[in-house]
Amino acid sequence: MSEHDKRESESTHNPSRRALLKAGFAGGAAVATSGVAAAATPDPLITEIQDWNRYLGEGVDARPYGMPSEFESTVVRRNVPWLTADAVASVNFTPLHELDGVITPNGLCFERHHGGIAEINKADHRLMINGLVENELVFTMEDIMRFPRENKAYFLECAANSGMEWKGAQLNGCQFTHGMVHNVMYTGVPLKYILEEAGIKPEGKWILPEGADASHMTRSIPMEKALDDCMIAFKMNGEALRPEQGYPLRIVVPGWEGNMWVKWLRRIEVGDKPWHHREETSKYTDLMEDGKARRFTWEMDVKSVITNPSPQAPITHGKGHTVLTGLAWSGFGKIKRVDISIDGGRNWKTARIDGPSWSKSVHRFYYEFDWDGSELLLQSRAIDEAGHVQPTKDDLRAARGGNSIYHNNSIQTWHIRPDGSAENVEIS
Amino acid sequence: MSEHDKRESESTHNPSRRALLKAGFAGGAAVATSGVAAAATPDPLITEIQDWNRYLGEGVDARPYGMPSEFESTVVRRNVPWLTADAVASVNFTPLHELDGVITPNGLCFERHHGGIAEINKADHRLMINGLVENELVFTMEDIMRFPRENKAYFLECAANSGMEWKGAQLNGCQFTHGMVHNVMYTGVPLKYILEEAGIKPEGKWILPEGADASHMTRSIPMEKALDDCMIAFKMNGEALRPEQGYPLRIVVPGWEGNMWVKWLRRIEVGDKPWHHREETSKYTDLMEDGKARRFTWEMDVKSVITNPSPQAPITHGKGHTVLTGLAWSGFGKIKRVDISIDGGRNWKTARIDGPSWSKSVHRFYYEFDWDGSELLLQSRAIDEAGHVQPTKDDLRAARGGNSIYHNNSIQTWHIRPDGSAENVEIS
Repeated sequence: MSEHDKRESESTHNPSRRALLKAGFAGGAAVATSGVAAAATPDPLITEIQDWNRYLGEGVDARPYGMPSEFESTVVRRNVPWLTADAVASVNFTPLHELDGVITPNGLCFERHHGGIAEINKADHRLMINGLVENELVFTMEDIMRFPRENKAYFLECAANSGMEWKGAQLNGCQFTHGMVHNVMYTGVPLKYILEEAGIKPEGKWILPEGADASHMTRSIPMEKALDDCMIAFKMNGEALRPEQGYPLRIVVPGWEGNMWVKWLRRIEVGDKPWHHREETSKYTDLMEDGKARRFTWEMDVKSVITNPSPQAPITHGKGHTVLTGLAWSGFGKIKRVDISIDGGRNWKTARIDGPSWSKSVHRFYYEFDWDGSELLLQSRAIDEAGHVQPTKDDLRAARGGNSIYHNNSIQTWHIRPDGSAENVEIS
Repeated sequence: MSEHDKRESESTHNPSRRALLKAGFAGGAAVATSGVAAAATPDPLITEIQDWNRYLGEGVDARPYGMPSEFESTVVRRNVPWLTADAVASVNFTPLHELDGVITPNGLCFERHHGGIAEINKADHRLMINGLVENELVFTMEDIMRFPRENKAYFLECAANSGMEWKGAQLNGCQFTHGMVHNVMYTGVPLKYILEEAGIKPEGKWILPEGADASHMTRSIPMEKALDDCMIAFKMNGEALRPEQGYPLRIVVPGWEGNMWVKWLRRIEVGDKPWHHREETSKYTDLMEDGKARRFTWEMDVKSVITNPSPQAPITHGKGHTVLTGLAWSGFGKIKRVDISIDGGRNWKTARIDGPSWSKSVHRFYYEFDWDGSELLLQSRAIDEAGHVQPTKDDLRAARGGNSIYHNNSIQTWHIRPDGSAENVEIS
C-alpha cells in the first residue's frame, strides 16, 4: 500500500467520530468561560461536546510530516497585497502575536523574495568560489557536508521591518509592524573554512554572495565580517532549509540586515572593493534630509516589540492578572534589559527575560501585572549589551529626517482600551 | 479571492517554468559529482538543468504555512506496521539521520498514541485540579495563559526506545533503533504555580495527570518531581503544540520516560499514594530474571547514537574527510563528554559537542576523521554530568537479564563497509 493509499485508508477509518466531532463544535459555541477560581463541577455543556475522548483518533501513519491543529488555522504568515506590485517580489509577515519563546517555527518564518521561490534540487545545486582566491572551487552539497559544522541561533530582520511606521501609526498589528523578523537555530559551516579552502589572496577584502533564484540577489560583505561569524547554513531548526528560506543553502550574516543573507546561494566572489550593486545603492540605503544617503548600514539596531497584548491579540479576560510578553533583539549582541511602560513612557519597570540569551538572537520577555481595567499605553524599550538604548520615534526622526524606509528601531506604542482591544498609536 | 483560490491562481502563474523544471530533473540524473578541489568551470549539464534562475518562482501568498522542499519528501516519520495491531495504538519514529542541531522540528517529532490523536478545540478544553487540594479548580486555556511562563528545551524519549535491540541487532537504521526521541523548546507554566493555586493538602504526595484522549492516559508522579521542574506546556518550538503532541496542553516531565508526559491534559488529581494504573504495572515495568519487576523506573539513562553515518545514511563520498555526527542525552542532567570509537570499542577519542548544552536536553556531537576506506565499527559512548557512563549491551543484559523491553541505553554499533554502506550489528 502506498503512503497515499494508507492515508486515504486511515482517514476513512473512523468516519463516525470525525462527523460527530464536527457536529459537536457547532453545538458548543455557547459554552461559558470558567474563571480561575471556578467550581470543579464540569459544565454539562462542556461534557456534551468533549467527545474527543469517546472515539479513536487518527493513527501514527496518518501524517508522515505533521501539521498544526485545524483550530490554529489562523496562525499563518500574511501578506499585504497592496504593498507591492506582484507577490513574487514581495514580503509576508511572521505572526509574532501567536508565538512564544525564542524559536520561530519554520512554517511561519516571514518570506521576502525578489523573484519568487527558487525550487532547487539539492543534488544539482553547486556553490562556486571565485575571484581573488588561490583556487577557484565548485562545491556540491555533499562536499559542503564534509566541513566541520556549527549550530547557532540568530534573528534575521528585514531592514524595512517597521518601515511603514516612519510615517506614523500605519498598520494595526505587530505581525505587520514588526513581523519581518524570525529567529532560527542554524546548522552549517563557518564561512571562513570555505574561504580558507579556496585561499583568499592578500588583496581580497570583500565578498559577493549571489543567489541562484531569478533575481540573482547579490550583496557586498566586508571580509572581516565574512571571516568573523558568517556561516553557510543548510539546516534550520534541525531540518533542511525551507525553499522560501534558500533551500538548499544560504549565507547567514548574524546581526546584519536580512537581504544580505543571500538565499539559494550559488556563488561567492572575492574582490578588492564593494560592487555597488542594486540592492546596496538604489535600495537598502537611507536618504537623509540633506539629500545624501547613508550606505552600508548593515547592523540591525537594538529593538523590541510587545507581541501580547496587541491589536491582533487583545485582552479578553477582563481586569486582573495579565501577562504581557514580547521580543527584543540587537545586531550588536545580547539584550541586557527590557523596560516596560504601561503609561506611554512616563514610568518604566524592568521586564523578566526568560529562555536562552544568545548574541544576535531574539530574547523573550514577560511582564506580569494586575490590570485595573483602565486605558493603557504599552511600550517596551530594549537595551543591548553594547549599551545601545532603543529610541523614541521622535528621536529617530530628529536624527534621520523624513525620507527613511529602513532601520526603524523605535519604541512601539499600543493603546489598550477598557474593553481590552488594542490599537497602534503614536504619542509624542 | 479566497486563500484557496489565490493558491490555485499562483500555482498556474508560471506553468512553463514548473513543467521545464520537472523535465530537467529526468535529464539531470547523469551529472557527475564534483570533488572538493574540482575545477571552477561549471559542468555544461548542470548549467542546462539549473533553470530555476530563469523563471519566477512562487510568491509570498503561495504558502501561508510553509512546508519542506519536495526534494526532502523522504524526510518523514515512519511507522513499522507489523509492530502493533493497529496504527491508533502505535508509534512512529523521528528521522534522526536526516536532522542536525538539537531542535527536532515539530512536523518530525515521533508520535506515540494509545487511542489515536484527540482533535481538541482549544476553546472547549479544560484542565481540572482535584483530589487532596484546598480548592478544586477548573481552568480554561485562557486562565492558564495568565500564569507566569517559562521556556525550556527538553528531550522526550519513550521508555521503549531501542527496545527491540535487547534481543540483538534488529532494526537497520537509527530512525528505528533510536527514533523514539525528540527534543523541543517548550513554553508553559511551571506546574508548581498551578498546584499552589489549588493549594496542596499536607497529605498530598503524588499527582495523577490524565489525558483527554480515548485512552485516558494516566501516570503517577511523586509530588517532589511535580514541584521541581514539571511544566504545563502549550507551545512547542514557538507555536501551539501539535495535535499528536497533546494540543492544546501537555505535562512536561523533564528527563523522565515519555509516557508520563501526558498529552491532551485535562485533569491532575492530587493523592497520598501512587495509583498503580495500567501504564505503570502491566506496562512500563521491567521484568527481571528472578520474576520480579522493577517499577517506577522513571529516569531515562545516559544514552547516545551516531546518526551519520548509519544504515539509512551511508558514506557516499568515498575515502577522506568524513563528518560523523550524533546525539547524546541523559535524564540526569547535561552531557559531559561523548567518546567515539571507529574500531568497535578498542580505542576511543573525544567528540566535539556543539550547540546548546542544556540539562535533560539532547546534545549534538561531531567527530571529523579521515576515512581510509577500510571497514569500521562505529560506536558512541556518552557520559553525563552525574558521572553515569553509557554501558555496553552485554553489561546491560548482565544487570537486567533477558526479559526487558524498556530502558535500553546501551552502546550502538554500526558496521561500515568499504563501499560506505552501513549495517546494524552487535559485537561482544
